[in-house]
Amino acid sequence: MGGNTFGNIYKLTSFGESHGAAVGGIIDGCPAGLSIDMDFIQNELDRRRPGQSDITTSRSEKDSIEFLSGIYDGKSLGTPIAFIIRNKDTRSSDYDNLKDIFRPSHADYTYQKKYGIRDHRGGGRSSARETVARVVAGAIAKLILAKDNIEVIAYVSQVGDVILEKHYTKPDLSNIENNIVRCPDQNVAEQMVKIIEEVKKQGDSIGGTITCIAKNVPAGLGEPVFDKLQAELGKAILSINAVKGFEYGSGFSAAQMKGSEHNDEFFTDNDRVRTKTNHSGGIQGGISNGEDIYFRAAFKPVATINKEQNTINSQNQEVVIKPEGRHDPCVVPRAVPIVEAMTAMVLADYLLLRRCDI
Amino acid sequence: MGGNTFGNIYKLTSFGESHGAAVGGIIDGCPAGLSIDMDFIQNELDRRRPGQSDITTSRSEKDSIEFLSGIYDGKSLGTPIAFIIRNKDTRSSDYDNLKDIFRPSHADYTYQKKYGIRDHRGGGRSSARETVARVVAGAIAKLILAKDNIEVIAYVSQVGDVILEKHYTKPDLSNIENNIVRCPDQNVAEQMVKIIEEVKKQGDSIGGTITCIAKNVPAGLGEPVFDKLQAELGKAILSINAVKGFEYGSGFSAAQMKGSEHNDEFFTDNDRVRTKTNHSGGIQGGISNGEDIYFRAAFKPVATINKEQNTINSQNQEVVIKPEGRHDPCVVPRAVPIVEAMTAMVLADYLLLRRCDI
Amino acid sequence: MGGNTFGNIYKLTSFGESHGAAVGGIIDGCPAGLSIDMDFIQNELDRRRPGQSDITTSRSEKDSIEFLSGIYDGKSLGTPIAFIIRNKDTRSSDYDNLKDIFRPSHADYTYQKKYGIRDHRGGGRSSARETVARVVAGAIAKLILAKDNIEVIAYVSQVGDVILEKHYTKPDLSNIENNIVRCPDQNVAEQMVKIIEEVKKQGDSIGGTITCIAKNVPAGLGEPVFDKLQAELGKAILSINAVKGFEYGSGFSAAQMKGSEHNDEFFTDNDRVRTKTNHSGGIQGGISNGEDIYFRAAFKPVATINKEQNTINSQNQEVVIKPEGRHDPCVVPRAVPIVEAMTAMVLADYLLLRRCDI
Amino acid sequence: MGGNTFGNIYKLTSFGESHGAAVGGIIDGCPAGLSIDMDFIQNELDRRRPGQSDITTSRSEKDSIEFLSGIYDGKSLGTPIAFIIRNKDTRSSDYDNLKDIFRPSHADYTYQKKYGIRDHRGGGRSSARETVARVVAGAIAKLILAKDNIEVIAYVSQVGDVILEKHYTKPDLSNIENNIVRCPDQNVAEQMVKIIEEVKKQGDSIGGTITCIAKNVPAGLGEPVFDKLQAELGKAILSINAVKGFEYGSGFSAAQMKGSEHNDEFFTDNDRVRTKTNHSGGIQGGISNGEDIYFRAAFKPVATINKEQNTINSQNQEVVIKPEGRHDPCVVPRAVPIVEAMTAMVLADYLLLRRCDI
Repeated sequence: MGGNTFGNIYKLTSFGESHGAAVGGIIDGCPAGLSIDMDFIQNELDRRRPGQSDITTSRSEKDSIEFLSGIYDGKSLGTPIAFIIRNKDTRSSDYDNLKDIFRPSHADYTYQKKYGIRDHRGGGRSSARETVARVVAGAIAKLILAKDNIEVIAYVSQVGDVILEKHYTKPDLSNIENNIVRCPDQNVAEQMVKIIEEVKKQGDSIGGTITCIAKNVPAGLGEPVFDKLQAELGKAILSINAVKGFEYGSGFSAAQMKGSEHNDEFFTDNDRVRTKTNHSGGIQGGISNGEDIYFRAAFKPVATINKEQNTINSQNQEVVIKPEGRHDPCVVPRAVPIVEAMTAMVLADYLLLRRCDI
Repeated sequence: MGGNTFGNIYKLTSFGESHGAAVGGIIDGCPAGLSIDMDFIQNELDRRRPGQSDITTSRSEKDSIEFLSGIYDGKSLGTPIAFIIRNKDTRSSDYDNLKDIFRPSHADYTYQKKYGIRDHRGGGRSSARETVARVVAGAIAKLILAKDNIEVIAYVSQVGDVILEKHYTKPDLSNIENNIVRCPDQNVAEQMVKIIEEVKKQGDSIGGTITCIAKNVPAGLGEPVFDKLQAELGKAILSINAVKGFEYGSGFSAAQMKGSEHNDEFFTDNDRVRTKTNHSGGIQGGISNGEDIYFRAAFKPVATINKEQNTINSQNQEVVIKPEGRHDPCVVPRAVPIVEAMTAMVLADYLLLRRCDI
Repeated sequence: MGGNTFGNIYKLTSFGESHGAAVGGIIDGCPAGLSIDMDFIQNELDRRRPGQSDITTSRSEKDSIEFLSGIYDGKSLGTPIAFIIRNKDTRSSDYDNLKDIFRPSHADYTYQKKYGIRDHRGGGRSSARETVARVVAGAIAKLILAKDNIEVIAYVSQVGDVILEKHYTKPDLSNIENNIVRCPDQNVAEQMVKIIEEVKKQGDSIGGTITCIAKNVPAGLGEPVFDKLQAELGKAILSINAVKGFEYGSGFSAAQMKGSEHNDEFFTDNDRVRTKTNHSGGIQGGISNGEDIYFRAAFKPVATINKEQNTINSQNQEVVIKPEGRHDPCVVPRAVPIVEAMTAMVLADYLLLRRCDI
Repeated sequence: MGGNTFGNIYKLTSFGESHGAAVGGIIDGCPAGLSIDMDFIQNELDRRRPGQSDITTSRSEKDSIEFLSGIYDGKSLGTPIAFIIRNKDTRSSDYDNLKDIFRPSHADYTYQKKYGIRDHRGGGRSSARETVARVVAGAIAKLILAKDNIEVIAYVSQVGDVILEKHYTKPDLSNIENNIVRCPDQNVAEQMVKIIEEVKKQGDSIGGTITCIAKNVPAGLGEPVFDKLQAELGKAILSINAVKGFEYGSGFSAAQMKGSEHNDEFFTDNDRVRTKTNHSGGIQGGISNGEDIYFRAAFKPVATINKEQNTINSQNQEVVIKPEGRHDPCVVPRAVPIVEAMTAMVLADYLLLRRCDI
C-alpha cells in the first residue's frame, strides 16, 4: 500500500527524502472555498523548523513552501493541493562514511532489509524531515476546524525526569510559545531547557512526552469498532518518528482504577450534556462526547548521538561509529506542532466523515 | 467509511449487535490453500467466551461458529470467508429500563448523538460482544503466520495494583493458560484473582494491562511514514473496547532515557543480525528488525457496575441508576485472546503486503 | 485486496459460492434512521430470482433473506447490515464430472491458475449467484436515493439481433415489468421472447443489451479525475458477470460526431439550468449536471450451453463435454435488477460523498 | 475521497490545474530497485505532448519533468516518487471573457455546482492537461511490466467515419508511430489525417476510437467480483477525458452472438493452455487467462470549438460564445499514450496484487 497516505476524506500523501530535491505532499479532499491563510501555514512550519533555537539541530532550513495547485484567489478549489519545500542545507558528505553502516536504533538496517536499497543520506525517507508535510496538512486542517471553533493545543509535559505534574487543565496554555521548550509552566520549562543543554553538551540526547488537547470537538465524531476516534488518533501519533507510547484520558493509570472511580457521570449544564469527570478523555465507544479530548505521547531519545557506538556494516562486520551529523538533543519541542498537526488531520477527517452519518 | 473493516490485504469486516440475531464477519484476502483448523478456531473462541470461569460475566454463550463460504474440503479458497455466531443467552429485558438512559462511561450517549438512533440492548454495536469476530479472524491469521513460524502470545501483566514486574522475557509463558486470569506467574495470578473476586463482590470492576509478544517476525515488515508497524498495531489495540493506552518496546519509560542508554547496538550472531538490547521493541523506522516485537496495553475498569450512579436520560433529566446487567468484573483475562487476534491480523496483513516490496 | 468490497462510503462486502451454505453480504456506511422496507427488498430479489419464468434457469431458489444486524425497529442503525440467503436448490452432483474440467469461457481455468484450488460446484464464487447480494444492497441504496427523489430504471434493449431502436425517452417505461423479458415495447418484447425460446430449445444461449436511466440526480455528484461518475458506473457495470461493454450518453456513436453536433448547449428553464440535447448522458467532467444519466451495457451469451464442446481438463488433456447444468438461455431479463442495483449503489455512494465537498 | 488517486498497490495521486503553477503527481507503491529509464519516460511524455504535429493543439509545452523523490542512483527506492511538470505556455487571458460562462459540454457548470468555486483558466482541474501525470506513472508501470515481458500497445482505430476495420491481429503494429495519427495502416492513417485537417479548418472537432492490446499478461491477474480485471480497466479508461464507451473482447457485438459461437474452446499448444478463439478478450471471470487482452474505447469530439454556440453564464443569462482557446481538433492521436498508460497502471497494480493470492 506504500504507507504514504493518511486519512479517509481529508487525505495527505507525502513524499521526500531528507537529502533529496524536496519534501512535500498532496492534500486531497480539502473542502472547496476555504480561505488558505499562508502566513498561518508558514508560522506553523516555523514552529517545526530546525535551527529555531539553541536546543534544536543546527541544520538551517527556511522551509519556505511553494503551493503548486488547488488554490485560486486565496481559496481552496476542492482539487488536490500540492506543495513542495526544497531541501537546502543538506550536508550529505557528513553521511559518506555511513553509506554501508547500520546506525543503532535508526532505520538503516530495516529499510535495507525491506527494500534492498536505500538513500543513506540524512536517513533518507526515514528522517523526520518528512514531518514537514504533516505540518502543512495539519495547518490547513486547523483552518477547517477553526470554522467549527475546534482548537488543538499541545505542549511538552516531560523531558527526561523533569515532569510537569499538573493536570492539563491547570497550567495557562497561552504560555506555551513563550519559551523555547514549549512548556506552559515557566519554571518547569527552565529545568527542561537546562537538561537539554546538558545532554547536548554530552553529545547525547534525551526523551520526553507531549500532552495534547482538542477543545470544542462536537459530540458524534468517530466511527465504531475499528476506526474508533482514539484508534485513529493513536495511529496518527504513533506514526510520528520516535513516538513509543500513546495514552488518552485516564490512560495507563486506568489499569489501577475501579469502575466506580473511573466512570464519568453525566449531568446537564444549561441544557448542554456534560460529564462531571473526564477519565474518558472526551471519547466514549470510539466517538467524541463533547468534552475535551486529551492524550499524552512518549518520545524516545533521538538515536543520533555524537558518541562512540558499536554496530555493524552491510557486510555484517562489527564497526565502531561516532556520527558527526547534526541532530536535535531532544525532539519534543519541535514535535509539538507535529503532534498538533496529526491531531488536527484526524479531527478534520472525522468531521467530514461525520456528514455521512444520518 | 463505516469503520467496520480492518486490514489492507487480509481484511475483516465485522457485524453484529450484542442482542441482535448474530455476530460475525467476512474475511477477505485470506490466501488460498490454507488448511483451516476448525478445532483451533473454536479453541480460540473458547478462550474469549463469556462464562468460562468464576471471574468472568455469567452470560453463557457457547459461541459455536458456522462458516458460510470461502472454505472447501478444509482449505481456504481465496474467496471471502463468511462466518456467523448466533447470540443465544441474551436477556434483553434486563435493559428495558435503560432504553432512554445514558449510562456513565458507556457509548449510549455518543451513539445517540452520532446516529440519532441506537439499539440499547446490551450496548448494541458498542458491546465487546463484537470482538468475537476479531478472534475468528485472528485465529485464521495465526494459521497464516504459523507457516512462517511466527507466534503471538499475550498475558495479563497487571490487575489493579497487582503488577507482574518481571520483563516479558523472564516468566515461563507456557504457564499462561494454567490459571483463569492468564498470568504466567502463578503467585501473581493468585493475587490477581483475589482482587477480581473482591471487586466482583462489591459489584465493582477493575482495570489492568496486557503484555503481548510476537516472536520470529522476519525483518522487513512494516510500511514507512503513516503505516508504520507500531502505528497499525497501536490502532489495532486501541480499537479494542476499554483500551486506554498502548506502548511498545521501551514505551513511556523512554521519555526518561538518554540516547546512549536507549540505542540498541547491532551485532551478528552466527550471521544473523541481532541487537544487544531491544528497547526498539523489534521495530525501527516502522519496520520490523527481526527481534521480538512486544507491547503493553492498558484497559480501563468495565463501565458496567452494580452500584448506584447519577446520570441523565434522553430528555436530559437527571436520574439514578443501578444496572442489573451481567458483566465482567475485569476484562483483561478474556481480552488476552482479543489482543492476540488483533496482533495476528496486523502481522498477517503486513506479511502479505511485504510481498510487493521489491 | 480481495476484490469483494464495492463503494467508498456506502459499501457492500459480499460472500458466497454458488453451492456453498449461503450467499450474502455486509453493507457498511448506510446512514442511520432509514426505514428498511422489507417487502421492497424481497420484491427486488424476486425480480432477479431464478425460475421466475419460462425463459430463465429452472434452478428454483426462493431467495428468502435473513437480516442479522444493523436494523432495529424497522430502521437502519448506522451499523453494518449483514444478511444471508441460504442456497437451497443446489444439485451439486450435476457438476461431479466437471470437477477437473475447464469449461470453455467459464472461470474454471482462471480461478485454478489464480488460487491453485477452486470450488467447481456451480461455478463456485464465479457464479452469478453472487449477484443476489448486489440486489439487496442495491435495494437499500434505492431507499436512500428515494429520499432525494432519485429513480433508477433499466430495461432490456436488445436480445440477439432484436433491437429496441427507440431512444430511451420514447418507450413507456412503466411497461417494463409487464413482460417476462423486461422490454418496455410489447411488440419487441414478444420477438425477444421468441428468440430466447428458440435458443433454449437448441440448448444454446444468446446475448443482449440493457439500457439504464437514472432520473433526478442532482447536479454535482462525481469526483474529478480518476473517480469520475461514469468511471465508477462503468466499473460497477463491468463487474457484473457476462458484461462485455459499457457506453454512456452518446457512447460509441460519439466517435463519428463533430463537436458542433455533440455539444449540449445550456439554457434555462424556469431558473433550472438544462441542456438542449443530452449527448453528455447527464455527466460532464465526471460530475452529474442534473440531466438524465443513461447508459447501455452489452452482455455476452451465457457460457453454459447444452452442446458438445471441445476443451481440456486439469491434466491438460483434450476432452469433449456436454454440460447438463441448468442455465439461463439469456441473462438480460434477470440482469435488469442487477444493473439497477449497481447503479443505485454508485449513486447512493456518491450522494453521501457529495456531502464533503464544501 | 477526492478522486485523485488511482490504484491499490501501485498508486498514482495526481494534482494540477491547466494554468496553475504545475501538474504532477506522487507514485506510491513502486517496487524498490527498479531502473528508472528517464529517456523512456520523456519519450512517452513527448508522444502525448501538445504541439507535436499539425493536427494537435498549438499550445506548446515541452513537458520537461523534474523528479523530486523516490529515485536514487537511477533506481527506485520503494518510497514515493514525486514529480512535477511546470506549466509554461499558458495564455490565461484567452479565458478572461469565459470567467463567468458555462461552455457547452465542458465541466464549467458541474465544477461550479460541486465546489461553488473554480479555476476557469484553461478548464482548471478538468482539463486533459492532468493526463500528463498519468503518462509518467504509466511509463514507470511499463518498466515494471517489462520485467515480466508484458507489453501494452494502443493505436487509433477510428476517426469520424474512417474506420480501420481490420481485427487488431492483422495490421503491423510496428507502424503505429510512423504517422502523426497513430494508426498502423498507412492508407487509413492518411484518410484520418485528412478528416482531422478538414475539421480543423472548420474550427470544429471530431471523435474517434482507440484500440489497445496487452500482450504476454500471465494467467491469474484479476480479482473476483467487484474488482474484475475488465472492471478496473474499464474504470481506468472511462476516467480519461472525453471517453464515452469501453468494450473488451467481443464487446457490444457479443449481444448478437450465441453461446456456441462465442465460447472460446481450450486446447494445449506445447503444454501451454490456449483458447482457439479469443472472444473473451483474454479475461474470464475477471481474471486473465494468458491470451491477449484487448479493448476499444470511444472518444467524443473535443468540446472546445471555434464556432458560435448558445449557452448561459453564472447569472443564468443566455449568451453566445465563440471561444478562441487553442484546442485539438481530434484527441485520439494524443490519447494513445494515455490509454496505454492507464492500461499499464492497472496491469502493474494487479501484477503486484497477484503476489498475495496463495
